[in-house]
This record gives sequence, structure tokens and C-alpha cells, in this order.
Amino acid sequence: MVTAIVLIRTEGERVQEAAQAMLKVEGVTEVYSVTGEYDLVAMVRIPEFEKLADVVPGQLAQIPGVARTETLVAFRCYSNYDLDRMWSLGFEE
Amino acid sequence: MVTAIVLIRTEGERVQEAAQAMLKVEGVTEVYSVTGEYDLVAMVRIPEFEKLADVVPGQLAQIPGVARTETLVAFRCYSNYDLDRMWSLGFEE
Amino acid sequence: MVTAIVLIRTEGERVQEAAQAMLKVEGVTEVYSVTGEYDLVAMVRIPEFEKLADVVPGQLAQIPGVARTETLVAFRCYSNYDLDRMWSLGFEE
Amino acid sequence: MVTAIVLIRTEGERVQEAAQAMLKVEGVTEVYSVTGEYDLVAMVRIPEFEKLADVVPGQLAQIPGVARTETLVAFRCYSNYDLDRMWSLGFEE
Amino acid sequence: MVTAIVLIRTEGERVQEAAQAMLKVEGVTEVYSVTGEYDLVAMVRIPEFEKLADVVPGQLAQIPGVARTETLVAFRCYSNYDLDRMWSLGFEE
Amino acid sequence: MVTAIVLIRTEGERVQEAAQAMLKVEGVTEVYSVTGEYDLVAMVRIPEFEKLADVVPGQLAQIPGVARTETLVAFRCYSNYDLDRMWSLGFEE
Amino acid sequence: MVTAIVLIRTEGERVQEAAQAMLKVEGVTEVYSVTGEYDLVAMVRIPEFEKLADVVPGQLAQIPGVARTETLVAFRCYSNYDLDRMWSLGFEE
Amino acid sequence: MVTAIVLIRTEGERVQEAAQAMLKVEGVTEVYSVTGEYDLVAMVRIPEFEKLADVVPGQLAQIPGVARTETLVAFRCYSNYDLDRMWSLGFEE
Amino acid sequence: MVTAIVLIRTEGERVQEAAQAMLKVEGVTEVYSVTGEYDLVAMVRIPEFEKLADVVPGQLAQIPGVARTETLVAFRCYSNYDLDRMWSLGFEE
Amino acid sequence: MVTAIVLIRTEGERVQEAAQAMLKVEGVTEVYSVTGEYDLVAMVRIPEFEKLADVVPGQLAQIPGVARTETLVAFRCYSNYDLDRMWSLGFEE
Repeated sequence: MVTAIVLIRTEGERVQEAAQAMLKVEGVTEVYSVTGEYDLVAMVRIPEFEKLADVVPGQLAQIPGVARTETLVAFRCYSNYDLDRMWSLGFEE
Repeated sequence: MVTAIVLIRTEGERVQEAAQAMLKVEGVTEVYSVTGEYDLVAMVRIPEFEKLADVVPGQLAQIPGVARTETLVAFRCYSNYDLDRMWSLGFEE
Repeated sequence: MVTAIVLIRTEGERVQEAAQAMLKVEGVTEVYSVTGEYDLVAMVRIPEFEKLADVVPGQLAQIPGVARTETLVAFRCYSNYDLDRMWSLGFEE
Repeated sequence: MVTAIVLIRTEGERVQEAAQAMLKVEGVTEVYSVTGEYDLVAMVRIPEFEKLADVVPGQLAQIPGVARTETLVAFRCYSNYDLDRMWSLGFEE
Repeated sequence: MVTAIVLIRTEGERVQEAAQAMLKVEGVTEVYSVTGEYDLVAMVRIPEFEKLADVVPGQLAQIPGVARTETLVAFRCYSNYDLDRMWSLGFEE
Repeated sequence: MVTAIVLIRTEGERVQEAAQAMLKVEGVTEVYSVTGEYDLVAMVRIPEFEKLADVVPGQLAQIPGVARTETLVAFRCYSNYDLDRMWSLGFEE
Repeated sequence: MVTAIVLIRTEGERVQEAAQAMLKVEGVTEVYSVTGEYDLVAMVRIPEFEKLADVVPGQLAQIPGVARTETLVAFRCYSNYDLDRMWSLGFEE
Repeated sequence: MVTAIVLIRTEGERVQEAAQAMLKVEGVTEVYSVTGEYDLVAMVRIPEFEKLADVVPGQLAQIPGVARTETLVAFRCYSNYDLDRMWSLGFEE
Repeated sequence: MVTAIVLIRTEGERVQEAAQAMLKVEGVTEVYSVTGEYDLVAMVRIPEFEKLADVVPGQLAQIPGVARTETLVAFRCYSNYDLDRMWSLGFEE
Repeated sequence: MVTAIVLIRTEGERVQEAAQAMLKVEGVTEVYSVTGEYDLVAMVRIPEFEKLADVVPGQLAQIPGVARTETLVAFRCYSNYDLDRMWSLGFEE
């Protein structure tokens, strides 16, 4: 599993609208509205790296209200949890 | 559940050592070594906000090799997943 | 009590208008127009962290004239004063 | 009453020690360890502006562990509270 | 006497127009068009700190052509000159 | 008369010592310890531009405790005061 | 062979369109849409330095959707590959 | 093939030494000493994304003289050349 | 002779037009379109400092297409060449 | 002729020493100590681009007291002067 943490700046008043639109993009597991310099952080978890191009520049960056995206791709993940299993089990609500 | 995304700069050669030490801090579920301006991103998920003080400035910032931390606290989380249940079931390896 | 210090940039000539509008947001106890890089600083003091999402991105960031907000959430407060009692007594004018 | 909001960067591991030392400086009513780009925020409330020189460059900036201070002085304060009375009543613990 | 040094960015072609308008603001003793990152520097010298709110956010920031102001308030002034007497004698042209 | 506004960063605890040393440099009329991103601002007023090299890189930048200087040279000065006469009369204390 | 690495920021939604237009510029061998602070990186490989003016400010910077370019020109190239031969053989698709 | 463009800052005088050391890291095809804000740019071309962790934080960042690395991973590559074939043919000198 | 190096950002597509217009400004000896963070660098060489105000904010900053100028004035010039004689001989084409 | 404008930061007190050392580097025609964010600007004028590697990273960056260099290489030069002839005539002092 490849994980990317996308730091996002939106046009001020469109934070919520943009966050909800991001959930419809396959591979986006969570979107957080956050304190600090950025407005949103989207967590992208996908099976193969090649799909990232479609998820981030292809879809996330095109969402109305998104001003800038800065993607941090995980080289390596350190965790006490079996993340692959967790996310694959699909705890959709 | 309160989530915080901690952007971390380390002293160049101590990335791996710092990442592993962070996993021993209660509340840290994942640590990613990442591309881009930062070196590590730690995901902190805790039941109450008050615990964040102990996790971030209290422990993460004190770990040898950590140069700077910048914490983004989630105002709100948007997800198709039942995150509380996922993380509470504890998929420890 | 959870405290947040919100650093705000406004459109030049709307500083005063924005500051007065912020006072109508529940949880905002003080707004200062300040020297330096920022234009306004709003002090938010609320009983539970969960309310912060509504106060900052939900209301403050939507106020006409507000260009950018950067929220610093207090991990811990150090004071010689009994702040909880002070603010709860409500010295409304 | 003149209010100043002092944004402070400390040497990583000395956040707590510096915060406690700041409380001993007359005029400092609260010190918050915070998320985001800065480590601490000190609130300074003093009767006359002339005292600020002694409080900030004179004392706060000299405290061991303080790397940089950036002072935002309040031009004007907007509040629904009678702040002068609140802080003058002295709710020392 | 309270002194403030106001660093100003203007819209490129309105430097001169903005500088002349600033001279009409009471408390502004000199305005310099300067080399470097900023376009203008205004020197404000007033008897009491409380007046600064009206001079900078109240008037200077509202002048057409002013894009951003960053005010540096003097904690303390070191000089071999008797500045108070100099500026009070009023060498208006 | 050529005026330069020198924005200065010092090593935290040496602000006062550096300010006093600057007063001994010919051409420096005032030094202010200030709020905001910088620590000191020195006002340099000299008859000819050619002397600036000796005043700033030649002397001010060499003063113990000075970390960085950024000089803003005045292209033009706008003032209601007869500055040349004021500073030439020499109101030394 | 002179190599230049051009770091490019585009208007959010025009990344792909701009990348394809760049391929038509003689001397551009590869264009990558990338993670991080920039949106695209164009690799320019040309026989003589004098041609760079036409390739970058002359053509790349004029492409619709390109907001800013920052060109890093290679002083020297270190490689285990015979790059001149590789790129001259022309593996056009 | 996954491509990464690694922007590198070195300690001033160790540019050449660091560049040569980088060529020994498997996956690094070219290293350029460059003009502008950065000192070196390393081109990394590897078959699978998972190897990037070992190449960049694992090896490049550990090379003596390397102060900071900022990795831009290619989402997508646009080229008129058959890059996979080119680099696989191995034009080692 | 007073020399100033003016770092200029232009609106992307107007680099060439702006450069040519700058040559008509008396005192501008060379204009370079450059790699890196800036778009143009203008070299200004004039007999007296007082003329700089007219050349830079007075004319260069007003040229259509110029977004920002940052002027570096030479305190001192070190050269093996007799620059005054060179530029005074006027090698106009 | 290829021209490069090298923006240089030095260790505060070694400006003059570094400037003089730079004059000994072949291709460096002028060095200016300057106002603003940088300390020195070196003008490099050489017949072929390939020599730049030796002049800047090879020699200038190695000079004691030089902290950072940022090289702006001229894509194109616009001038009313016959610069090639001027610099080739060699007005050495």
C-alpha cells in the first residue's frame, strides 16, 4: 500500500465543500480540516504508486475551491498496526 | 477521537531512529518518512484533546534527532470509514 | 477550557469591520488589532475542543474581509491566574 | 491596559522550563504551549507601554531556552468583557 | 514619545502618491521610499501609545495604493540626541 | 543628506549591548529595540552616500552580537520637517 | 550538452495541458508532474547554452497555464552513463 | 519506472565530493551541480516505488556533506522518448 | 559612480518587452533575463546617488509588466578594472 | 560571452576579506558589497558556459567566509553598449 499525505490550501470559505468533494475520490480515506498554515490534509492510501497521478493532480487539485496542493509521499511507514489489513477490511460507514 | 498530524524535521541521518522511537509513544498510530520539505509525519489519534500536550511537546519533541515539530490538529474529520471503530479494534501486529 | 490563538490576515481596509464581527462568534473572548506580520489576533476560549471546528473554520474564516487564518491551539496553559473561574464569571460589559 | 502577544520559538526540549520561568515575569498573565509554527505564546498585560521594553527584550528574551521572540503589540482591543476589571481583580491561584 | 517604524508595500506605480498622502496623517514625521524588500518606510512619533491604533490601521493602512503594512513599535530608543525636544520644536518647513 | 534604515537581528541576549555600541558609530542618530521580526532598527543619516560602506558593513555589521543586517537606503525622503536643519543643529544631549 | 532543470508552478487545473504543450518545445526531453512544492519539472538538454534563452523565457514561460518558472542550470553533470550518446541516438517513440 | 528529482543542499565546500558519492547509489542515474537556490539535483530512476525509501532517506541523505534533501516524486512522465528502453539499455561508460 | 543591481519579477510573458523598455531609462547599462527566482536583473550606473530615486521607483518600477523590484545598492565596488573610465568612454553600439 | 550574477551571503564580519579574494578568480570582473538581503554580488563574465562550474562552485563557493551562493545565469543580455568589446579591451587598472 502506498500512502500520501496531501497538504491543501483552499479559498477561505470553501473548506467544507472541498473536503466533502474529496471523499468521492477513490483512494482518499480521510480528510481533516486542520489548524496551522494549511486548511485541509487528505490521506491517500492506494495499492500502486502509479494511481497517485490520477488521484492528486488528476482529481484532488481540480476540485473547486482548492488553491494549492503539496503532496508528501511516504517512503516508508512505521506502525504497530497492520494497516494493510485494517484499510482492506473496509470499515465503510 | 482527536487526530493530529505532526510534520517533523529531523537531523538528516537520524530519520529512521527517530521514527522507531516515536512508535513507543502512546497515541502515535503511524509514522511516515516522506518526500518534500519535511522528513517525517506522525499521526496521533487520542481520545481526549488534553492528552496532546503530553504526546507532542511532552514526548515527540524530546526524541533525539527531532529538530522541529509543527502540529496540525484536526478541527473536523471527514471520512467514509468508521475510524473510531477501526482504531479502537486495535489491529496491533 | 480549551484556548486557541488565531492569527489573522485581513484585506487592508476591513480590519475594524472584521474585528467587530468576530465578537459575535460564541467562544471569542478578545480580538486585538496588532502590529507585525498579522492584522488581528482572536482569542478563543471554549469548554470542549470539538467546538473549535465551528468557531474557526465554521465562522471566523467566513467573515467578510478575512483573507487567511492560522490557528495555534494551546496544548497546555501556564498561569498564576484561575482562568477558568475568571472567564466563567463572565465580566460582560 | 496595553496587551502584547509574544510568539516564541524555544530550543525543542526546553519548552516547559521556559514557560514556567516566564510566569515569574511581572506582566505575563498566561503562557500557552501551542501547535503550529511557534512553541509558546505569552500574553503580556501591563498598565503602560513603556514597561514593555523591560518585560520582553529585558526579561522574556533572556530566559534560557528561548531562541526567538516576535512581539505583536495590540493597537486596539475589541471585547465583550471588561478586561481591565477582570485582570485588575487578580484571580491569582 | 512613542516611535513606530512602519514597513510598507505598495502597488508598484503608486509609491509617490501614497507617500505624499501619508504626510497628511498626524504623527507621521517622515516617509522614505527605499531600496530592498519594502517600498516605503513611515516614521511615526506620537506622545501616547493609544494613538497608534488610529495612525496605522486607522489611517495609513487605508491609504489608496497601500497593499500591506508591518509595524515595528520601539520598545526603547537609544540616541545621543534629545529627540523629544527636537521633534517638539517643530521644524515644519 | 542620505538616510538608511538598517533592520538588524541580534543574538537574543545581546540586544541592549549592541544598541549602545551602535551609538558610537558616526552617522547613527537613533537605535530602536523593536517588536516584530527584527530586534533593532538603526537610523543612519550621513552627508554623502559613499560613507555608508564604512558605517554599515564597515562598522555596524562588525559589532559583537549582531547576527544579520538588512539595509534599506532611502531613494527619497518626504517630510513636513526641515530634516537637514534639524539634524545639523545637533541636539546632542 | 547543456542541461537545465526547470521547476514550474502552474495554475492548478492546467497541469496536464501545460505539460503536453512543453513537449513541443525543442530541447525539452522530459516533463514530470511532481509531488511537493512545484507542479511540473521540465528537463531541457541542448547543445549550446545560448539556446536556453529561447527555450525557457522564450517558449516555456509563455505556455498558457504556466504561472512561474525557476531554472536550475547544470554547472556540471556527474553520471555513469554516456548521456550525450544516449540523448543524441534519439529514442523517439 | 518511477522517477524522483531530489533537490539537495550541501555544506558549501563539499559539493563535488557529495556528487561523486551519490553516483555509487543504485538508481541514481545523474547528479547535476546547479545554479540557483539548491546545490545539487540527483535524478533517481528505479523500477518500483518501494525502493525509493532505501535510495533517498536510506542512502542519499546520509552522504557526508549533504545538509538537506527535498524529493519531488514524478506522478507522471511526459516524453517523446522511450525512456524505459533508454535507461534499461544501460549506456554505462 | 554609484551602482545598483535591481532584481526584478515580471508578469510571465512580458519579460522581453520589459527588458527593452528598461534600456531607454538613463543610467541602465545592462538588463539580463536570468535563471533562478527572479526574471530580470538591471544594472544601474549613475554619477550621483540622488538620481537613483528617479531611475528605480520613478521609471523602472512603472514599466508595464514589472511586478516587483528589489534594489541592491552597492556600498563599495571591488574590481581589477577601471570601471569609471570604461563606462564613461561610452561603447554605445 | 556568458554572464552570471552571483548573490552571496557571507559570515558577517568577513565581507571585505571575501570580496577581495573573489577578485583573484578568473572571470570575476566586479564584486559589490550591497544593501538588502545579500552581502555581496559578484559579476562573472566568461567566454564559454562550461567554465562557470569552475568559477562558482569550484572557486567562489570555497572562499573562506562565504556562507551561501545563489547564481543567476543570464539567458540573454540587453544593452546599448558593446559589452563584449568593452570587457575584452581589458581596462585593468
